[in-house]
Amino acid sequence: MDEVTFAVLGTGGIGRRALEVSQHKEALTPVAACDRHGTAIDFDGLDVDELLAATEGNIDSEPRDGDVATDGGAATAESEGGVKQHGEDEGVVASEQARPSADPIQDVIDRGEEIDAVLLALPNYEHDFIPRVADRFLEGDYSGVLIDVLKRSRVIDMLDERTETFEEQGITFICGAGATPGLLTGAAALAAQSFVEVTDVDIWWGVGLKSGYEDNRGTVREDIAHLPEYDIETARDLSDAEIEAIIDDHEGAIEFEDMEHADDVLLERAGVCDAEDVTVGGILDVRSDEKPTTTTVSVTGTTFDGETATNTFRLDDATSMEANVNGPALGYLKAGVRRNRAGEYGVFGPAELMPGF
Amino acid sequence: MDEVTFAVLGTGGIGRRALEVSQHKEALTPVAACDRHGTAIDFDGLDVDELLAATEGNIDSEPRDGDVATDGGAATAESEGGVKQHGEDEGVVASEQARPSADPIQDVIDRGEEIDAVLLALPNYEHDFIPRVADRFLEGDYSGVLIDVLKRSRVIDMLDERTETFEEQGITFICGAGATPGLLTGAAALAAQSFVEVTDVDIWWGVGLKSGYEDNRGTVREDIAHLPEYDIETARDLSDAEIEAIIDDHEGAIEFEDMEHADDVLLERAGVCDAEDVTVGGILDVRSDEKPTTTTVSVTGTTFDGETATNTFRLDDATSMEANVNGPALGYLKAGVRRNRAGEYGVFGPAELMPGF
Repeated sequence: MDEVTFAVLGTGGIGRRALEVSQHKEALTPVAACDRHGTAIDFDGLDVDELLAATEGNIDSEPRDGDVATDGGAATAESEGGVKQHGEDEGVVASEQARPSADPIQDVIDRGEEIDAVLLALPNYEHDFIPRVADRFLEGDYSGVLIDVLKRSRVIDMLDERTETFEEQGITFICGAGATPGLLTGAAALAAQSFVEVTDVDIWWGVGLKSGYEDNRGTVREDIAHLPEYDIETARDLSDAEIEAIIDDHEGAIEFEDMEHADDVLLERAGVCDAEDVTVGGILDVRSDEKPTTTTVSVTGTTFDGETATNTFRLDDATSMEANVNGPALGYLKAGVRRNRAGEYGVFGPAELMPGF
Repeated sequence: MDEVTFAVLGTGGIGRRALEVSQHKEALTPVAACDRHGTAIDFDGLDVDELLAATEGNIDSEPRDGDVATDGGAATAESEGGVKQHGEDEGVVASEQARPSADPIQDVIDRGEEIDAVLLALPNYEHDFIPRVADRFLEGDYSGVLIDVLKRSRVIDMLDERTETFEEQGITFICGAGATPGLLTGAAALAAQSFVEVTDVDIWWGVGLKSGYEDNRGTVREDIAHLPEYDIETARDLSDAEIEAIIDDHEGAIEFEDMEHADDVLLERAGVCDAEDVTVGGILDVRSDEKPTTTTVSVTGTTFDGETATNTFRLDDATSMEANVNGPALGYLKAGVRRNRAGEYGVFGPAELMPGF
């Protein structure tokens, strides 16, 4: 495959790990990274080691309405205390490759012609946050690949409403391209191939996040929004202390059931099953790096010769959430660029694309 | 997806089951089926029930040099004795929809403009058999999808040599699109996404074929060619009695190790690992429908954060070989038609395509 240049919006846990994993992938060059207050751009390829060293544990992450937040969590560095700071700098501007910016997204859009793909490593603090970011790229006449790692089912519909505009403008939008939805959605679609009718898709994940907790506070906050007592808005308004209290209440390991996870609509749009036949749940342990349970996809269906059976896809407990999100995200990014270069535009999910390696 | 018309070359076990499974798939219309001596064509859609009823256990299957054989086995209906015959008819002409033909492939090529995809459900009795069939479609100015369920690694190179011609002529050739290579190759490519380096892909299959044995003698013969004592040529020359003797020697269940299976080159061309890191083996039991072992794909690699781990994909023992070959074959066929309609031509493997459902 020819060289692919990509930008990362958001330099929290997912954005930073995506930059790191891209160093191991062939034909992928990270050329831009930004958070709410700054942008690093280098078309010879970012110095990822320097950027990661400068921003590790130093995440510009306060969620603000309509802003580009990162997935790093809710509190400012000040309010968290003890977080690495470089002088007055917060977030990506701590890197010597970055400069402060009043509109980091616009910086990326302005250089869009040289950027094949943009990974939106942003938490979806409002339902329409990712779609509104897409609108900015549409307004900025970007053409290329936009790819997100969103979780919420309802966001897919909002993106689908923009399909015609994406097609007119040459945008290939890959949605839900992390671990779940993403890797596991693709695995479910493959496992379904034995069947002529799929009756149940059960996605069950385990995440142990002790050493990655600081970098992934945004992801934890988003997960808490899936608890029955919370929603995106109420989770967004939680203070750090309140989140810690929730974690304490669950002794560090929170179990989720019947999550609103876009695997359901992404499998339905691929024709695999009805959205209501998909269930997603899992256990998040922020006090151990060991997975509290084995991530497993179980697909049950009926074969053409009348048997009922269950195919399974299982991730080794030694594969971290970070490995299972960022490998697929970059794999789907490469697959998206290939589609885009072939002139296929619109909205695609992971059950429609085999990720590149 | 818009309606897809397809033809099946070969009405042995795989061809007939593909016709049957297509009845359960949306947007797929079988319009032609042929074996060495006859062709059934109906652009309103074949009456699959009639065709299957007329040809079940009545397979025109003697392998001949350069001929269109089916995957039904080596002996003529006469020499097998006890096989259903309809008057003078042998094979597909037993169906009231078919007529005898001196050149059944040409019949299909002549109607190629109305056929989106052609499934080559043919055994590869000679190394270059599938490539030579492709050449006939090239000579006949066909454009569209050609798809095979071949097993031998060396055939991929022969198809790759034709890539430029395929591209010029608008042919999208999908190779190795059954269970393995096919479904399991795709699963291996997905499971690899957790890793930055893949060290081993181990594909291990179990097939119980008692009730499908008569229809799948060609497949059994091809498998025997993978035993260390045989090759394609010597297996092709075995009489039915000699094959039965081999089966008796193994008490009905033959174990295969280190098979030449195209999963290796198909994963290498997708960038997943080196071909030599892929091993394929399994157990074929022709005296029981129960699988003698569970079909499993194990992918071992190293994550970006330095862990070594093994992800696994497991097919339920209740899913038959027929279900696991024909679901994916038609799924990849649909994916191929989508690529072809988008103008993507050349040679593709299952690790590059997510099959449609």
